[in-house]
This record gives sequence, C-alpha cells and structure tokens, in this order.
Amino acid sequence: MKTYRRIPFTDVDIIGGFWRERQQLNREATIPAVMNRFMETGRFEAFKCGWREGSHNKPHIFWDSDVAKWIESVAYVVEKASMPEMERIVEQTIDEIELHQTPDGYVNSYFTSVEPGMRWRNRSWHELYCAGHLIEAAVAWRHATGRDRFLKIMRRYADYIDRVFRVERSAAFQTPGHEEIELALVKLYHATGEKKYLDLARFFIDRRGANPETDGQPLTERLATQSHMPVREMRTAEGHAVRAGYLFSAMADLAREDGDESLRAACEAVFDNIVNRRMYITGGVGSTLNSETYTIDYDLPNETAYAETCAAISLAYFAGRMLLIEPDAKYADAVERVLYNGFLSGLSLDGTRFFYTNPLEIVKSRRGAHPCTEKGDWLPIMERVEVFSCSCCPPNVTRFLASLGDFAFTEDDETVFVHQYMPCSAKAGEARLTMETDYPRGGVVRVKARGLNGRRLALRVPGWCSRFELSAPYALERGCAIIDAADAADVTLTLDMTPQLIEARSNVADCAGKAAMTRGPVVYCMEGVDNGGSLADIRLDPAGEVKETGDYGGLPVLEARGWRRPVPQGEWLYRPYTGRYEEKKLTFIPYFAFANRGESDMRVWIPVRMIW
Amino acid sequence: MKTYRRIPFTDVDIIGGFWRERQQLNREATIPAVMNRFMETGRFEAFKCGWREGSHNKPHIFWDSDVAKWIESVAYVVEKASMPEMERIVEQTIDEIELHQTPDGYVNSYFTSVEPGMRWRNRSWHELYCAGHLIEAAVAWRHATGRDRFLKIMRRYADYIDRVFRVERSAAFQTPGHEEIELALVKLYHATGEKKYLDLARFFIDRRGANPETDGQPLTERLATQSHMPVREMRTAEGHAVRAGYLFSAMADLAREDGDESLRAACEAVFDNIVNRRMYITGGVGSTLNSETYTIDYDLPNETAYAETCAAISLAYFAGRMLLIEPDAKYADAVERVLYNGFLSGLSLDGTRFFYTNPLEIVKSRRGAHPCTEKGDWLPIMERVEVFSCSCCPPNVTRFLASLGDFAFTEDDETVFVHQYMPCSAKAGEARLTMETDYPRGGVVRVKARGLNGRRLALRVPGWCSRFELSAPYALERGCAIIDAADAADVTLTLDMTPQLIEARSNVADCAGKAAMTRGPVVYCMEGVDNGGSLADIRLDPAGEVKETGDYGGLPVLEARGWRRPVPQGEWLYRPYTGRYEEKKLTFIPYFAFANRGESDMRVWIPVRMIW
Repeated sequence: MKTYRRIPFTDVDIIGGFWRERQQLNREATIPAVMNRFMETGRFEAFKCGWREGSHNKPHIFWDSDVAKWIESVAYVVEKASMPEMERIVEQTIDEIELHQTPDGYVNSYFTSVEPGMRWRNRSWHELYCAGHLIEAAVAWRHATGRDRFLKIMRRYADYIDRVFRVERSAAFQTPGHEEIELALVKLYHATGEKKYLDLARFFIDRRGANPETDGQPLTERLATQSHMPVREMRTAEGHAVRAGYLFSAMADLAREDGDESLRAACEAVFDNIVNRRMYITGGVGSTLNSETYTIDYDLPNETAYAETCAAISLAYFAGRMLLIEPDAKYADAVERVLYNGFLSGLSLDGTRFFYTNPLEIVKSRRGAHPCTEKGDWLPIMERVEVFSCSCCPPNVTRFLASLGDFAFTEDDETVFVHQYMPCSAKAGEARLTMETDYPRGGVVRVKARGLNGRRLALRVPGWCSRFELSAPYALERGCAIIDAADAADVTLTLDMTPQLIEARSNVADCAGKAAMTRGPVVYCMEGVDNGGSLADIRLDPAGEVKETGDYGGLPVLEARGWRRPVPQGEWLYRPYTGRYEEKKLTFIPYFAFANRGESDMRVWIPVRMIW
Repeated sequence: MKTYRRIPFTDVDIIGGFWRERQQLNREATIPAVMNRFMETGRFEAFKCGWREGSHNKPHIFWDSDVAKWIESVAYVVEKASMPEMERIVEQTIDEIELHQTPDGYVNSYFTSVEPGMRWRNRSWHELYCAGHLIEAAVAWRHATGRDRFLKIMRRYADYIDRVFRVERSAAFQTPGHEEIELALVKLYHATGEKKYLDLARFFIDRRGANPETDGQPLTERLATQSHMPVREMRTAEGHAVRAGYLFSAMADLAREDGDESLRAACEAVFDNIVNRRMYITGGVGSTLNSETYTIDYDLPNETAYAETCAAISLAYFAGRMLLIEPDAKYADAVERVLYNGFLSGLSLDGTRFFYTNPLEIVKSRRGAHPCTEKGDWLPIMERVEVFSCSCCPPNVTRFLASLGDFAFTEDDETVFVHQYMPCSAKAGEARLTMETDYPRGGVVRVKARGLNGRRLALRVPGWCSRFELSAPYALERGCAIIDAADAADVTLTLDMTPQLIEARSNVADCAGKAAMTRGPVVYCMEGVDNGGSLADIRLDPAGEVKETGDYGGLPVLEARGWRRPVPQGEWLYRPYTGRYEEKKLTFIPYFAFANRGESDMRVWIPVRMIW
C-alpha cells in the first residue's frame, strides 16, 4: 500500500491570519481558562488521589482524560513558545501521577482513590480511554520538552495494560468501551519504536466485534460502542460519534502501518458513509442525544442536532489520517468543513466558553415547551458555558487548535501536498514552502516552494469551489491540482469566494425547501439578533444579490434579499392562506460565531423562495 | 347567568349520511371489537376480583374505566336499538361489580383484588377516575334500560366517596390525580336529583390547586395534574390534556349549575387559550409525549404531535358544555373541528383499530433513527392497532360516537340552536326539527322546524366558511344566523364547500411556509401511497386549481398542482443550490382517513410556493 507522510505541525509555522489569531487566543485565553475551570472543579486535585467520601469534588471516571488533553495542549503550545506557569503545573501533575502510579504500573486517579477495588471490571468505565489520553499527553510532553519522565510512566502503564489484556487476559472485558487508546498506542509506538504497542493497538482493533463481553447485549448497545461487528466488515458509521471517530482514526493508522487492505476498505466505506449521508453541512456528526450516536442515513435534524464538538474533531482526525493513505481532496475537504464550522462553533469568540453540542437551528419561542419530564424532544443549550460536568470538549478544542498545522501538508517522495490554506512556512524534508494568503477572507493563495528537488507540488481544489484559477499548468488528480516541480517555485491559486447557496439532498427531511448560505469553506447562519428577533417564516431569494458588508468573527457579514411574513396581529391561530410576505433584508454571520451576543434564534438552513 | 339546555342525543335521530354510517359501524364493528379485545386482555375478568400473583392478565389500575366506557357505549346504542349479546355481558359485569362491592360501598377491581391494602393511598392511582367512569356508565345504563341496579351500586359508592373525601377526609389525598369524577358527579346529580353529588363535584373542583398533597411538588408535576393554582385563577390550559379537558368540562358544568361567574370566566379564558394558541388544526390538543400535556403557546410540532384521541374528545366535551353557557359559534366550531379530524382519525375506516396519538406528519425514512435509548425524539406509531396496554381511547371513541347527537342542538325558551349539520330529526320541547343534508360532502343544509311556538331558529355559520347563503332573513349573533320564528319553518343554508388553503400563525414554527388543505370542516392530508412514496420536498401551488376527484373515507379526494424536487441521483449530500423542481399532481385525502392503507409518509402542512 502506497502511503504518505504528514508534515507535523512542529514543522509548520502559522505566521498570520485567521488561525494564527485563534492559536494566540488559545494560548492566552482558552488554555488558562480550561485550566482554571479544571482547578476549581477538582480535576487536578484528583491526581493527588486524596479524595475521601464526604469531600467536595468527587472525582469522575473520565477526569484523567480531561487533564491529559489539557497537558497535551500545553505541550503543543510549548513546541513553539514556552508557557512557564502552565509547564510548572504540568510537571506538578506528573509528580502526582508518578507518586500514585501503583507498583504494577496502573495509573488512574479515580480507580486508585475512589473505587480501588473496581479496576478493569467494567468496560464502560473509561479506564482505557483515560489511559489513551494520558499516553497521548506523555508522548506530546516528551516531544515538546525532551523530558521523558511522563513517557516512562506511561510506558510502564502501557506495558501493564498489555500484560493484563493481551498476555494474561485477566480483565473483565477485552476491548475498550470508549475507544481512544488504540490511536494513542500507535503514537506511543512511533515515539518509542516499541512494536509491542502497535501490536496491542492491533489486538484491541482486531478483537472488537468479536469480543465476548458484548455477546447477548442488545444491538443498540453494541452499536453504541462499535461492538456490533468486526471492524473490517464495517461499512457505515455507527454508535457514539466520538468513539467511532477515534476508532476509525486508529483503524486508518493501522491500515497504513500494516498495509492492511481490508482495514483500508472499511475506513474508506465508513468515511464515504459519513460525508455522503450522516454529516451536517457544518461537519458535525452524531445527530442525536440518544447515546450521542450516529443514527441512520440522512437523519440530520437541525434543531435537535447533537453534533458534539469532540465528534467533529474526531472526524477531522479520521480524515487527516485517511490523507496519509490516499491524498484525495475529499478527506481534506472534510477537515476544512470541520475546521471552519462544526469545530470552531464549539468555542466562543473570546475563547473562554464552549459548546458541547452544536445545533443548526434555535427557536427560542419553543424553549420551555416540555417542562414535565425529561422525555420527549430534547433541545441543546443556547449559549456556550465555561465548563461541563462531562467536560471533554474544552481540552479537545485546545489541543486541536494548538496542533492545527498537522492538517496543512502531506508528502511522499514524489509530491508535496498542500491541503489547507493559511499563511505559513513549512519544511517538507529538503523542501521549504511558504504560503501567503488571507484565506478564507480572500481566495488568493500564493505558494512558494524551494528545494522540491523534482518533487511535484499538489494544491487541493476545495470541493466547495466551482471556479478557480491557477498560475501554473496543472493536472487534476483526486481533487488536487498537480504541478510539476519545474513550474512550482511560485504559484498562485485563486479561488472564487463568491457566496454560494447550498442545497441538501431531498432525503434530508429537515432541509426540504431550504438552502444554506456559504462563502468559501465557511457556513453562514442567520441570528435573531441581526434579523429582528424571531426567524419564523422567512424566505430567501435564491436569485438575489448577496452583499458583503461589515465583519463578524473575522469574516464578512453577508446580506441577502428575502421576505418574512408580517408579525401577526390579533388573536388567531389558523386562517385562510394569504401568502402575504413583506420584503426583508436578511443578515448572515459565520455559523461558528453564533451565540456570542446572548440567546438568539438561529438558522443555518433558510427556507428559499421557489422560482418557477 | 343565562343558560341553555342541550337537546340530548336520545331526542336526536341521525337518519343518514356521514355520521349515521359511522354510528352503524360503531354498533356493528367497533363496540364488539373493543369488547373482544377487552375480553382477551382480561379486563372483564378483572371484575371477578379473582386475580392472584402468578396469573395471566394482571389487572391494571385503570381497567375499570376501560370497561365502564364500553358499558356506557352500549347504553347509548341501546337507547336506539337493542344489542342483546352486549346487554347480557353488561349485566354479567354488573353482577360481578355488585358481588365485589365491599360492604362500605367501595368498587374497584384492582384495589379489591391486587392491592387490597392500598385504597385511597395515592392520588395518581386513578381510583376516582375509575369511579367517575363507572358512575357515567351507571347513569347511562339506567337511562337506556330503566333498570337501576347499577345506578344504586354506584350511588352507594358515591356516598362512600363523599364520606371519605368530604366528611371524614380520611384519604391520603383530597383531589383526584386524574380528573373525571367531577363531571360524572354532575351527571349523577341530574340522574338522581341528589344535591350531595353536585356538592361533592364542587368540593373536588374548589379544593384543586389548594390541596395540600401537592405542596412541595415541582411545578411541572403540579401542572401535569392541573394542581398548580385554584381553578378560578386558571387562564391557560396546562398539564395532561385529557385530565385538563375533563376538568374544564366539570368547571363549565358547575359554572352553569351555580351561576358561578368566576368559574365561567376561567373556562372562557382557558377555552380561548386552547383554540387560539394550543390546538392543532385537527382539534388535537396536548402536543407532547411528556406526561401527555399541553405545553406552551404555539408549540405544535407536527411529526411528534401527541394529540391523544381522548384529549380531542375531552375538548369536544368541554366545548359542548360551553355552548350551554353561551351559544357562541366558536364552541361549536371547536366541536366540529374535533369531530371531523382529530377525533375521527383515532378510528380506522373498518372500525376496529385505533390511534392513541394522532400525528400531523409522518416521515417514514426517519423511523429507526434513534435506536439507542428511549430518550430523544419520540415518534408516534404509524398504523392503528386493535388495543393498547393503556386502552382508554377505543371505548372513548365508541361512547363519543354513540352519543354524537348531543352536540347538534341546544335551546332555551327563546331560541333553538343548530350547531352541527347532519341528516336528522329532533325534538326540542314542543318543536320538531328535521335536517336534510349530505354535509360535509355538500354544503346545502335544509332545516324544517315545526312547533317553534315563537322561538327563533339559530343556525351556526361555521368559522371555516367565508361565503354562505341563507334562504331566510337573518341576523348574525356570535357566529349564528338568527331567524325569526315566522321565517323559520323551512330554511336552506348553503355553505361554500370550495377547498381552502389554511395558514397557521407564524408563531407556529413547524408550519412556517406551509398551508393545510381543507374542505369545509374537513382537514386534508397527503399520503405517500397516493403521491409516489416520499413526501420529501414538495411544494404546493397556492394559486392553482383544486379538483375534486374520486372518493375516500366518504368524501372527495382532492387534487392540486404542485412540484417536487427530482429524486436525487448518485451519492451526494450537499451541493450548490439548483432550485430544480418538477411539476407534480398532489393528491389529498381527508386527514381522518390516513394510515388505512399501510405505513405511509403523511403530511397535513404542505410547503407552499411563495408568490411575489
């Protein structure tokens, strides 16, 4: 199997523009804010393993993973610039982890202090998930600092896990209920060269769907944890969307490591199933609160969308890994869709508040409709909050933002691929690349390449883009414009950034008769705050001019022509159809920036006036 | 307070047409079918009080009410024509009730046989609700047969309830958790002349909202049982929709009996709140599965509509009683809306299967989307079934159908009011009325009146009707055309039955951009079975001609001009907006007749092409 190499973010310097600003905010506001919330809620304290019945802040089984992702975030920032205060806290946390690692190598604050007798008893208790995140953090920390104490601790833990699960098979289950450790073990293998860790990742992946602990479970439960069939037979994305994304990422890793064609085929089919049938236009996935799962093809309700921030991130991880198997633009398109939409919407513009769920529609007047029980229609929160009781998303946002450069380039010995456009400089082996652009505000991307030494340069032509120009001769291959080395020293790609209306396949019931406003990779939305409060019964003119006006969230505000029904007068509920509308200017802002000005109605999919 | 008298169905002979057919079906198919299902499930057997742990068909706390409503149905049929087999079973059931009535007068098969120690312990256990239905059955049975054994049994029970609740106050609660007995006690008062029963009804109504057993309950729970405030302060319909409807009915009864203006004001406000803000176009009410409750103003989701058949019936009962306080056409309009739509949809065309919930939209492709837990979006069943575990609706349908004539006329000493149009003859005191019409197929109603003795004749002009002609001079008063006695011997009312599109107030989020097809009082729907399967992304031409073609459910099928998006080809989910539609004939059938030809997509509210 032909494979490709990622140019790691450590070799990519984002030197300005949209993402540079957000990386700065991440370093200066978000990472400290997440740390403070985790301090207040006892998540760091938990590593002291001193919690006793009756104390405050009872640890939770997934807390280790929260802090681990935060450490990983700090590590990624430290790759580029030191953060002395944060680094000190990381080292203190490693002190506690080291102190409380049990003699056999086990590391888990919850099962060491709160339920010490319950180690490896229940597949759903997130132990291997926490282990995975701690491993990722340790690998990142060693790479960033060169100090290997944390990595050694986690190697001892991984060795112990290998013994328990693969050698002795003494745990009450065989595969993680929440996947994550598989991809972490691949990273550990790369960081240490120790093949055993890759073998353990493969062991977990190979046993999934054949593991006896799920025999007799109802299909819905097996689906929720991707335990319904052997992974090589999978053709659709099922179950808990974050778990699924991490599993698919690890499957892609392993397909590449092993040249495993059957695993690759499963990954390709699952990916296509997601992007062609089970993904919101925002890149959000997992459309229901019900166990936070993928549901069925084309079931993408807007108002009750779950679309967890972590699930969007996991889709980007998966797609990014698929690029290492095949440099098809569809994978980078998915990454880009997530980046500018369903991932970024998880973070407030001031960098301190988070969405766990990312709906595509808010109707404020419906709130409070179902007060009687917790059953029935469920509606996501309307404003971001600083921390969740299950606060997996915030530190996932911070680590993802800090390592964003990972998605920009891949290479092999014949070609250097540019997948994401941002002002940056990068080294790809001997080659040096620089990109100049104000994308996605503008559509002009200038790429200079030195030292290609005969390698070709490939520039992704985004799937959303129907008109582009390239200053050099090129051939299109799998959505990428391939330029010979001789022409690649200085090329300019010009993407048409004219706003576009998008329609969904008619199978998506909730998008019938509607269109979404987009501009480049950015999905837009209407908010009540810009459009007179309620967004009830508006219509967009699909043939009207769309103007760029003002700026919000760093991108143009868009104005389109439309109509709305007049505000009803008097007491009536039903009456003969009048078809009466009044003209109305419709104002759109980038979707990722919604809900930064208080609770508001919001819509991505706008009813469109039919033209006939 | 000026009040009016109902002309009871026993004085109204429906001699043909739409409802006559359905009453025949009720007698010949539905009542026997309900009986058979209740036999099979042990509901009759339960009255033998012989159930023991380990036996089949464990009785349920509300089973007495199911059989009681069935007995009431038989009684209403027997008023017109004997049913020897059914009558025998009623008498056998009364034998059992008599045998197992405890010495103090208590009658309840569940608390006598299954949990004998738990009498009057829990407000939510439906004892008073079952008592109410048994009282209604006994009153009906005595009226139909002249035999008063059952009524005596129930008087003893009512006397006992009076002692426990009003005199001794020895129950663990003060008011029923599920209202019903209040209106039954008013009936018992009228049947016996015993004022104590009216006093007890008033006692239950007056204490509601001040009853200490709900102190400290969360508001949502108090709302669910209409225990959130004293009834005279109520201005909105809250909580469980069936309980609410029965309570409001009893409040209206009592307002009339007592000339109680504050109770009347509450009834009027609540009624207006329902019909102006909380009622589906079908007359369905209670829009959520969540405790089967009313929710908030304008919250009327179509696909997840609960709209229980019993709730529609309870609204008709309430509206019918309001007509005895004020002959405003809005009350009879509500009755009519329920009759032809949200009530009748509860029954299959063959008369043997029932809907508990009556959705306004079915999207088959969304089914199976949420397999993982019971949380999240809830969707009603797609086809009627023969019996439910909680099978309140079927015998409610049978008793309501059998006594439908109750809603046709009211009178006082000055006027005879005609509220519902059907071929019938009726006596109103000295007066004899006959109605000739094929309404609602046709819009011509000929009313002949003899013996008015100076009384005026009033004909309701339906709220849905924007054009009508009347052959005699008239004055319009509260929606009724009032005709002097001198002109009233033979009048013809001609209602324009041209199909009409209806719009909902823009506050109803789920109806934005949509219209409903109606014809006279009948709401229409589209079904997939007539329209090529899926109803995804169709548009109706609001300016197009609507043709009457064929017949379904006893009424014309309608055809309108519209469009649909072409069936998508290939694998894609989002693409630039094309606005492409193809012309399509849209076929509509009466809503009440949906789901009689297998599972099918269905829509009442159809997206409309905006005209500008």
